[in-house]
Amino acid sequence: MITDLDRPRLLAYRSDYTAPADFDAFWHNTLREARTHDLAVRLDPVATHLRAVEVFDLTFAGFGGHPIRGWLRLPRQRTGRLPAIVQFHGYGSGRGHPLDDLVWSAAGYAHLIMDARGQGGDHAGGATADPVGSAPSYPGFLTRGIEDPHDYLYRRIFTDAVRAVDTVRSLDFVDPRRVAVVGNSQGGGIALAAAGLVPDLTALFAQAPFLTDIQRALRITGTAPYREITGYLAARRHSADRVFRTLGYFDGIAFAARANAAAWFSTGLCDDICPPSTAFGAYHVYRGPKQIQVWDHNGHEAGGPEDLAIVLAGFDPLLRPSTMEEQ
Amino acid sequence: MITDLDRPRLLAYRSDYTAPADFDAFWHNTLREARTHDLAVRLDPVATHLRAVEVFDLTFAGFGGHPIRGWLRLPRQRTGRLPAIVQFHGYGSGRGHPLDDLVWSAAGYAHLIMDARGQGGDHAGGATADPVGSAPSYPGFLTRGIEDPHDYLYRRIFTDAVRAVDTVRSLDFVDPRRVAVVGNSQGGGIALAAAGLVPDLTALFAQAPFLTDIQRALRITGTAPYREITGYLAARRHSADRVFRTLGYFDGIAFAARANAAAWFSTGLCDDICPPSTAFGAYHVYRGPKQIQVWDHNGHEAGGPEDLAIVLAGFDPLLRPSTMEEQ
Amino acid sequence: MITDLDRPRLLAYRSDYTAPADFDAFWHNTLREARTHDLAVRLDPVATHLRAVEVFDLTFAGFGGHPIRGWLRLPRQRTGRLPAIVQFHGYGSGRGHPLDDLVWSAAGYAHLIMDARGQGGDHAGGATADPVGSAPSYPGFLTRGIEDPHDYLYRRIFTDAVRAVDTVRSLDFVDPRRVAVVGNSQGGGIALAAAGLVPDLTALFAQAPFLTDIQRALRITGTAPYREITGYLAARRHSADRVFRTLGYFDGIAFAARANAAAWFSTGLCDDICPPSTAFGAYHVYRGPKQIQVWDHNGHEAGGPEDLAIVLAGFDPLLRPSTMEEQ
Amino acid sequence: MITDLDRPRLLAYRSDYTAPADFDAFWHNTLREARTHDLAVRLDPVATHLRAVEVFDLTFAGFGGHPIRGWLRLPRQRTGRLPAIVQFHGYGSGRGHPLDDLVWSAAGYAHLIMDARGQGGDHAGGATADPVGSAPSYPGFLTRGIEDPHDYLYRRIFTDAVRAVDTVRSLDFVDPRRVAVVGNSQGGGIALAAAGLVPDLTALFAQAPFLTDIQRALRITGTAPYREITGYLAARRHSADRVFRTLGYFDGIAFAARANAAAWFSTGLCDDICPPSTAFGAYHVYRGPKQIQVWDHNGHEAGGPEDLAIVLAGFDPLLRPSTMEEQ
Amino acid sequence: MITDLDRPRLLAYRSDYTAPADFDAFWHNTLREARTHDLAVRLDPVATHLRAVEVFDLTFAGFGGHPIRGWLRLPRQRTGRLPAIVQFHGYGSGRGHPLDDLVWSAAGYAHLIMDARGQGGDHAGGATADPVGSAPSYPGFLTRGIEDPHDYLYRRIFTDAVRAVDTVRSLDFVDPRRVAVVGNSQGGGIALAAAGLVPDLTALFAQAPFLTDIQRALRITGTAPYREITGYLAARRHSADRVFRTLGYFDGIAFAARANAAAWFSTGLCDDICPPSTAFGAYHVYRGPKQIQVWDHNGHEAGGPEDLAIVLAGFDPLLRPSTMEEQ
Amino acid sequence: MITDLDRPRLLAYRSDYTAPADFDAFWHNTLREARTHDLAVRLDPVATHLRAVEVFDLTFAGFGGHPIRGWLRLPRQRTGRLPAIVQFHGYGSGRGHPLDDLVWSAAGYAHLIMDARGQGGDHAGGATADPVGSAPSYPGFLTRGIEDPHDYLYRRIFTDAVRAVDTVRSLDFVDPRRVAVVGNSQGGGIALAAAGLVPDLTALFAQAPFLTDIQRALRITGTAPYREITGYLAARRHSADRVFRTLGYFDGIAFAARANAAAWFSTGLCDDICPPSTAFGAYHVYRGPKQIQVWDHNGHEAGGPEDLAIVLAGFDPLLRPSTMEEQ
Repeated sequence: MITDLDRPRLLAYRSDYTAPADFDAFWHNTLREARTHDLAVRLDPVATHLRAVEVFDLTFAGFGGHPIRGWLRLPRQRTGRLPAIVQFHGYGSGRGHPLDDLVWSAAGYAHLIMDARGQGGDHAGGATADPVGSAPSYPGFLTRGIEDPHDYLYRRIFTDAVRAVDTVRSLDFVDPRRVAVVGNSQGGGIALAAAGLVPDLTALFAQAPFLTDIQRALRITGTAPYREITGYLAARRHSADRVFRTLGYFDGIAFAARANAAAWFSTGLCDDICPPSTAFGAYHVYRGPKQIQVWDHNGHEAGGPEDLAIVLAGFDPLLRPSTMEEQ
Repeated sequence: MITDLDRPRLLAYRSDYTAPADFDAFWHNTLREARTHDLAVRLDPVATHLRAVEVFDLTFAGFGGHPIRGWLRLPRQRTGRLPAIVQFHGYGSGRGHPLDDLVWSAAGYAHLIMDARGQGGDHAGGATADPVGSAPSYPGFLTRGIEDPHDYLYRRIFTDAVRAVDTVRSLDFVDPRRVAVVGNSQGGGIALAAAGLVPDLTALFAQAPFLTDIQRALRITGTAPYREITGYLAARRHSADRVFRTLGYFDGIAFAARANAAAWFSTGLCDDICPPSTAFGAYHVYRGPKQIQVWDHNGHEAGGPEDLAIVLAGFDPLLRPSTMEEQ
Repeated sequence: MITDLDRPRLLAYRSDYTAPADFDAFWHNTLREARTHDLAVRLDPVATHLRAVEVFDLTFAGFGGHPIRGWLRLPRQRTGRLPAIVQFHGYGSGRGHPLDDLVWSAAGYAHLIMDARGQGGDHAGGATADPVGSAPSYPGFLTRGIEDPHDYLYRRIFTDAVRAVDTVRSLDFVDPRRVAVVGNSQGGGIALAAAGLVPDLTALFAQAPFLTDIQRALRITGTAPYREITGYLAARRHSADRVFRTLGYFDGIAFAARANAAAWFSTGLCDDICPPSTAFGAYHVYRGPKQIQVWDHNGHEAGGPEDLAIVLAGFDPLLRPSTMEEQ
Repeated sequence: MITDLDRPRLLAYRSDYTAPADFDAFWHNTLREARTHDLAVRLDPVATHLRAVEVFDLTFAGFGGHPIRGWLRLPRQRTGRLPAIVQFHGYGSGRGHPLDDLVWSAAGYAHLIMDARGQGGDHAGGATADPVGSAPSYPGFLTRGIEDPHDYLYRRIFTDAVRAVDTVRSLDFVDPRRVAVVGNSQGGGIALAAAGLVPDLTALFAQAPFLTDIQRALRITGTAPYREITGYLAARRHSADRVFRTLGYFDGIAFAARANAAAWFSTGLCDDICPPSTAFGAYHVYRGPKQIQVWDHNGHEAGGPEDLAIVLAGFDPLLRPSTMEEQ
Repeated sequence: MITDLDRPRLLAYRSDYTAPADFDAFWHNTLREARTHDLAVRLDPVATHLRAVEVFDLTFAGFGGHPIRGWLRLPRQRTGRLPAIVQFHGYGSGRGHPLDDLVWSAAGYAHLIMDARGQGGDHAGGATADPVGSAPSYPGFLTRGIEDPHDYLYRRIFTDAVRAVDTVRSLDFVDPRRVAVVGNSQGGGIALAAAGLVPDLTALFAQAPFLTDIQRALRITGTAPYREITGYLAARRHSADRVFRTLGYFDGIAFAARANAAAWFSTGLCDDICPPSTAFGAYHVYRGPKQIQVWDHNGHEAGGPEDLAIVLAGFDPLLRPSTMEEQ
Repeated sequence: MITDLDRPRLLAYRSDYTAPADFDAFWHNTLREARTHDLAVRLDPVATHLRAVEVFDLTFAGFGGHPIRGWLRLPRQRTGRLPAIVQFHGYGSGRGHPLDDLVWSAAGYAHLIMDARGQGGDHAGGATADPVGSAPSYPGFLTRGIEDPHDYLYRRIFTDAVRAVDTVRSLDFVDPRRVAVVGNSQGGGIALAAAGLVPDLTALFAQAPFLTDIQRALRITGTAPYREITGYLAARRHSADRVFRTLGYFDGIAFAARANAAAWFSTGLCDDICPPSTAFGAYHVYRGPKQIQVWDHNGHEAGGPEDLAIVLAGFDPLLRPSTMEEQ
């Protein structure tokens, strides 16, 4: 069952979102401040029984210099500098388990999956605290600090994401010119933000992205996690202007309009969590080279591993992962 | 449909919870530290169209000296010092609206309803930030800081509750010897904690209390909000010992065993949110004078306004609210 | 998630409901007949522990002379004649508990909340029987007597509402020229009916009103209680003409077109119980001075206490409640 | 999934229900009063396209002399007096459509299906009003008049059922010595009541009977329709004693202990609407010859048509339906 | 609540389905092949306690010569050749119990209800195996063999249906010129297919038909059983072209365009299982005489027994069932 | 919330399942017959962008010589013969995508994931038909052929599993003495069956196993997929003896009692799909070395990747996977 517009209407749809006038200044200042902190990268080897992949517990200094954790996975067989994938995870969970997500390292990439700070208590664990408190919020993470863009949780998370890119680029076994950002759902939204904030990324994969065309999403979907915002505004009826002003600094459409990396979007026509029109809202204004995969009969899972296969093929000539033959 | 034990089994049930050895020291130190901060009470009149009740936006310094907000409602007609009711609200909401909850002030009490910090983005708004960050948590409030008793959100909230009692006692129009704490659900749990931490309160009303006999609750109920803890432990399988150690400092049973105020408990046999056995777990060890109202056919609402009528009658001779005749 | 039309479409929407030709005659005759019965008002004081409010168990003769019950609450401090609020409650419940709903009396009004007869076995108890039987009905109250306008339950309830107004006007401590009718959901529908049937009321507050633009409601919502009618028509496929003929005499749109009181409507764009277009259907044709509060992110609760604050402010200059200063 | 006790426990289970001391007097007086009214039987032929079955719209005077409707179906080929089946339907619906329920007439019985008065607005239509009003009730039929046994709806319905038996016995083409009562769910409860109130019925079929061992049912099931009573008691906390006193006059266990007809019970171990232990509560004390069919994997449908086949076979030698050969 | 288009839009709606070019050849070959098998009709009397109806366990050779089972019911009183009704049942169940569905035989028809092969393990039992295996499928029956029209389960079932018509026509007590096909939901879809494949049927009754305008159904409904196809396509993202090619041979619209029998359609505007527009998609192109009953307030049950009464009346002059008088 | 017994009761629990007398003969004959077919192993390389893992589309002849598909993944860096993991997937899905499930190959194992025939139309696609038809079944796979053990789908699937082991052992790059079987849910049940049928496997990992202690599971859980059997028996009331006789040949308890491989079980105390007592039913009688991981706060996911880490560590000394160092 189609949950949103059909294909022709999706192609014709354009969002009425407009970025705040000081959007770029806001993020310029935010990132400049974050970059005053030393990256303080730390790599602790993790013992696993994997033979083909090495796993490290990576820590770097994110927003505010706060320690951010992730897993760094490397193909054990490697020569030369590796291209890197920086991955962001879905809402509520964390970087997960060292044994998860082996595809990128098995495909010859350095692969960093970063914790979304504060999250990581659901589905798949995380290890990163958010040391910043919050004004009153709706249960969940989506409204923490939402009354002011400077306080909003995603200001910290998006900055962490940029710093995660800085981090992989700082590693001597990574080629800083070959870096991509990827993610599903919230992870897709974070990846899109990173692509908008880091001008020279090579590629982006945003699968069923969250946090794009947010006001439309709130109007047309009542499911979690978007409903956290609606729930918040239902309880705090006079906060809407402030909330929408804040969200203006975090909408994927603004990042899309600024991103240069080659982009792979995907969306499912039956997605009732991140409705496809909100992905198209970002896609249509995306500045760099772009393609979007539309899955007629899928929901929020979109193309699942099929998307991954498409993206691996698409990334290959751009990112040139390490091959066994080269080793 | 009965969700838990029947009446005879409830009467016979005893929890196997035992408090940590340093429970009293933990709270002694916590409160001592909090009390190093000046209460910094501030009262801002709120304009309403109420004729019989005055409302003030009250602020005081809670845990860490952080500003905690509440509404203070006073009967406009009053003479002499008033007895005071300090009320705590249910999970997720806040102090609500100035026009809510008029019964206590209309009954002749000074009535303070305190925000649970950080909450207040659902159902009924709050105005109190929690400036303390958190390790990874499950969406919601119940697992914020749960890996260490010093970091746990409820350490701050329970301390705020004690400070709220300190606050009403500091008001020159309140008789500090006539103070009661009341609440439903989470509010009942906070009230019970306050009664356990403030030795000379006059009365307690804990309706369908939350956060008592917590480990049993987790075993027998799968509903929100207790399921936040189960969800957290499902994602973080190695945290159980730490989590249960933390919760040991916050279980209503321990507070019950230390409380002296005359207590009114109530519970519904069909409650699937705070199962009645967990209320009885606290009731059976309650140290002060006590009674428990059992509502055979009610769920989490327990006795609703019937409980209130019983409690108003019970409080009357103990707290002696201001009467029109005296004025 | 928006459940119905968006704001621009709501403003443009007009219902195609038209009142039956003998609508006025039907109600004229109904009220004339009811008024042949003596009001037989009886006031029994209710013992509560409230100091600021007096509560009475009020009985009057409604439709058919049947005894109708309500709570009458008065500010204990009062001088001169009071303005009066007549309130109607939501579907299925009753006048509730003496300790409920203190805001109006605390604000200086005489406040009568009337039982909807026969209801009162759900949520909040009532005390008023409906001595009239019924043809076959769907479980619930909405289809009792629905095959004939003379037999329909709401003929009796709306008449009771008019008689409740008559009743408060008959009280020697009430100023009969300062009377308002208020209610939420079903209560809003009843208040709207009373405003259409009593030409000289001062004010109306209809929050998320039920029973307006009924045929549209049945087409666009499948939730309780409207679905009782759909369920009835599903079982009784040949009753639709009779049922819609009956409902024509009870649709809030007809009452709106006849009402003179200053009106405050409110509706939530996420309301799936009483969809906002059905409130606008009545609002657009409302004859008296009017305003409508639209809450973008709220459901059936609409503005909750925010609506109340707006209405208290709006009522104040019109109804001039008793103030302490005057006393 | 088994919803209640397993087979061995069902066999051992005995209800602690005890009938009120004046149970027999209550019903004796009720029936005597009803029988003061002439039966006023009326048969109106209904045009159908059935060739093998004749259908009549039957009316008789039930409780209070009120007109009660049913369908009477007769095998078109018949000789001599017919045995009769009086059937009662499930909760909320009515006698249904003339084309429904052909099995009994096709099997050679005169077959009367009686409306449960007032119901018939859900699932399958009815045509019988209940001209008696009601004190406040929970939406539905189960609590109408429940505060007093004389006012309870089922006093009227059970009396109607006895009068339905009187009616078929009064028909000159029916053999009054060969009459059985049958029903599923509510219909089974009514049939059981009729069997307890009419001493000389030949047979009874109670499939998944409702309204037996009611207090236990309320404790162990939360589904409709039993939850109407729980919902009522949740809203009216002080009514439990009165309600349970009333229900004491209507519990199938009391009727079972007084019934002489040969009985076929059936129940499904997965029934969560009328839990099997409540059927066994009645079965164990049933006074006449009895058997119970237990369906391990069925819910409220119990044996469905399999029960019917068993019962047709069991009824055959007792009731000796008209056969083609005899004609 | 209306689930699809309203009446005016339904009348205007036309599907964009087009049949495959070789649709007729596909079915011509399929039926020719099936008819190479001897019908091998077998009638085994079933002992029931019915006096007016005889029941036989009928077997015939369907697709592939596989034995297909059904119940044949005959009015015991009959003279001359009977008209015949061939009925098909809803999704998942089977021919049911001998005591079910007596209306047609009681109305003077020979009545065959045919098992849908392989189904019959849910709701009402069947007795017919499907000896053909299947490629991977989604749980259920709707995707078994769906990648190729020759392998699709409904090729076999629709062929069985044609053979069921052949079978009743072969019975010496049936008049082969007076045969109708009937069914609800899946049964309506099968009946429609039979009417499209057998050119000289007298009448068709398709109530809430399934498997018509299938692609639209998939876009607008997410309920079972259509969601089996969506679920399949979600898991097998590259199968859509093959699946839709297959379904092209089985869409009721194609059969409607070829059918000559006088047709009675019915649909409910609240049907969320087989949305009314999909019934209208077939109705609008239906070639023979036709009428459609639209039930405004019903769901998938459509007119229920009301439809049956209409159809019995409509069939009567065309099919002339045996009457008692004629006997 | 705990869904079944608590830990002490699980440790004490013993199932009352007993295997049929001819259990071993049944399987001996079944496997002997299957092994008359040549394995006909075929390996087709699959192009992926993985550098560390090679993937092959593997086909072998399973039950009846039918072609069974799977993915074979090999670490690209390998020397000497590899130990092999044969994995079985959960209910309804299939072998999935070549990019899924990289952990075993990355850990140095040859890894075969086998399709469960006929399934693979849900969640993750499969490619293996089941060419065998079926008697009537409930929608799904669990009742296909369930009336006779020779016809039951799982006879074919379990045999395929044994043949999958035969297949990996036949590969010249696999060491046939180092083979383990693993799976989650249905996959755990199949792995357990394989361990019971192949006497010389090295290790077994059964996570939240399905199809063990089946009769108990049916009594205590109402969730999918077990409810397919209950649904079937609800529709086919006389099939229970046959169905339970069939299931006797497929219960994991019988296989456990015959298995020699070192076993790792895991179960979650909140699992409502495969309740933990049913896992313990098999665990307690397991013949070989064994351990069971009990996850107090997890449902059907049990230990997730934590289980995998435990099992990788446990398998390591027994199966000695290829290491980079060895290469």
